[in-house]
Amino acid sequence: MDQSIVIVGDWGGSRLRLWLRQGKSVIHRRDGPGVTALTDSPEKTFLDLVGDWREAGPDYAILCGMVGSRMGWTEAPYAPCPATTGQIAARAVRIEAAGLPVRIVPGLSCVNPLGGPDVMRGEETQILGALSLDAALRSGRHLLVLPGTHNKWAVVEDGQITTFLTAPIGETFALLKAHSTLGAGGGSLAEGSAAGFARGLTRIAEQGAGRLTHLMFETRARQLLEAMTPADAMGFLSGLLIGADVAAARDWFGPMEAVTVIGDGPLAALYVQALAATGVTASAVDGDAAVLAGLSMITRHQDASS
Amino acid sequence: MDQSIVIVGDWGGSRLRLWLRQGKSVIHRRDGPGVTALTDSPEKTFLDLVGDWREAGPDYAILCGMVGSRMGWTEAPYAPCPATTGQIAARAVRIEAAGLPVRIVPGLSCVNPLGGPDVMRGEETQILGALSLDAALRSGRHLLVLPGTHNKWAVVEDGQITTFLTAPIGETFALLKAHSTLGAGGGSLAEGSAAGFARGLTRIAEQGAGRLTHLMFETRARQLLEAMTPADAMGFLSGLLIGADVAAARDWFGPMEAVTVIGDGPLAALYVQALAATGVTASAVDGDAAVLAGLSMITRHQDASS
Repeated sequence: MDQSIVIVGDWGGSRLRLWLRQGKSVIHRRDGPGVTALTDSPEKTFLDLVGDWREAGPDYAILCGMVGSRMGWTEAPYAPCPATTGQIAARAVRIEAAGLPVRIVPGLSCVNPLGGPDVMRGEETQILGALSLDAALRSGRHLLVLPGTHNKWAVVEDGQITTFLTAPIGETFALLKAHSTLGAGGGSLAEGSAAGFARGLTRIAEQGAGRLTHLMFETRARQLLEAMTPADAMGFLSGLLIGADVAAARDWFGPMEAVTVIGDGPLAALYVQALAATGVTASAVDGDAAVLAGLSMITRHQDASS
Repeated sequence: MDQSIVIVGDWGGSRLRLWLRQGKSVIHRRDGPGVTALTDSPEKTFLDLVGDWREAGPDYAILCGMVGSRMGWTEAPYAPCPATTGQIAARAVRIEAAGLPVRIVPGLSCVNPLGGPDVMRGEETQILGALSLDAALRSGRHLLVLPGTHNKWAVVEDGQITTFLTAPIGETFALLKAHSTLGAGGGSLAEGSAAGFARGLTRIAEQGAGRLTHLMFETRARQLLEAMTPADAMGFLSGLLIGADVAAARDWFGPMEAVTVIGDGPLAALYVQALAATGVTASAVDGDAAVLAGLSMITRHQDASS
C-alpha cells in the first residue's frame, strides 16, 4: 500500500492551498497568498509555508493553477485539447526548491465551442479529479461546470477533456457590484437575496440571454422606481448573469440530462439552482476533493511513466 | 422677433454645460462639474458659473439632466411615457437662485420594450430637440439611439416619446477596461483599434448576442494565445458590447430602415458603424445641437402656457 509522502497544492491567482499527504490521507493543510498577491518570490513563499513539513521527508511537491502562468513561478505551457490525464501529466514542468523536486501542472488551451481560443489553469486538475471520483463520467459525453471568477464549462468525452468555454461571470458581477451605478440606492455590500436571484433567473428566461445588458439596467431602475432593496438588486443581477451563462451553455451543448458542478459554497449552489430552473439535474462535486483527486491522478501517471 | 435672453443648461452626472442665449443665438458657453463631482452646493456652483451673465438680464434659466434627480439640485419627478413636449414642459419644477427663476426639466419613466421599468434624465430633452430639428421624425414610428454610459434606445411615434430601453454599455466597457483581467497582457489605456472593433462586431454577429459574456473572454484568450495587442483587444471588446446592444434593439424594435443617432465623438461614430454592419442606415444628430433645440422647445411650450 502506497504510504509515500507528497506535498500537493492548488496555487491560483487569489489563494494558495497546500496539503501534506501520506498515501491517500491528508495530514495537514496550510493556506497562503495567490500569485497576484505575492510579497516574496514564489519559491521563498512556498518554502516558508512548507516549513517543518520537510521533516516528514516528502518525495516531491506538485502544484496546479496560475503558479504555472507567466506571472507565477515558472511557465508551464498550455497542453492542447483533447487531453487525457496522461497527456497532462507528461507536460508537467519539473523544477526544484532547495533540494525538493517540484512539479508544475500545465494549463489547457482549446478551440472552444464558439470557434474561439480559450484557456484554463487549475480547472483541468479538478476535472480530472471529478473523473477519478465518479466512474460514470469516464465514458460517454458529459458537461461539467466550474463556477468562479472566470466560469468554465468543460466537455469530457470517454475520459478526455475535449473542449471548454469560459465566461467572466464572477468577475463581471464583482465589478458591477463594487463600482457601477447598478448598485446605487444603497451602499450595501450585502450578499444578494434568494428572492432577487430567483427573479433574475425568471427575467432572463423570459427574455433570452441576448437581452442581458438591457435587463442589467433593471437592477437600477427597479431600485429607483420600485424601491427594490440593495440585497434584492444584487441577487437579481447575479440571477441575470448566471441565468444567461446557463442558457448559452444549453444552447451550444445541446440537450442535456445532467451536469456536474465542481465547486463549493454559495456560488456552486446558485449554479445548481439555475440549472434546476431549466430542468437540468446537477450533481455537485466538492472543489477541494476534486483538486486532491486530480493531483493524485496526475502524480500516479507521472510516477508510472518516470 | 424673439430677442429674450435665457440661460440654458445640460447638467448631467459627469459634466455641466451652460449656454447664454439671445433669441436663437448662443452668445457664450461655460462648462462646470457634473452633479456627482460637486464640491459646493448646486445653487452656489450654478451662481458662481453664471457670474457676469446676470448683467445681460436673463429672464430665467432652464436646466435638464441629473440636476433634477435626488442627488441633484431639486428632485423633478419622472414624467411617464408616452410624453409630448407639452407634457414634459408642464412638469418642469420651478425654483429660484438669488432672484433668478430656474426651471428644472423632469426625466422620463416608462415600461420598456422588455416589460421592465426604465428611466432617463436629460436624454428626453435631446430627443425633443431631434424632433424639432428634423420634421421627418415628427410623424410615423422611429427609433433613436443616444450612446453613452447608459445607452438609451427611444421610440417616437407621431411626435410622442412612447417607450425607451437602457443598457449600461459604456459603463460596463469602462469597468472591464479599467479593472478586469480582460485588459491583461498590457496596461495600455489606448483607445480601441478600428480593426479590433470590426472583428468584435463580426464575432457577435456570427454567434448572437446571447453569447456575449463568453465572447468577452476571447478578449483575454486572444491576447494570451494570439498576441492580440491591447488596442485591438479593447476595440474587440467594444465591438462585442455595441454589436450585442444593436442586435438586441433590432430584435425588439423589428424591421427598421433608418435610425437616428444623437451624440457626437467616437462613440456615436461606433454606433453608426455597428448599425451599418447590420444593414441599417444611421443619420447622426449632434448632441449639443439636440439639447439646445430641446430646451428651446420646452421653454416655448412653457412660455406659451404660463
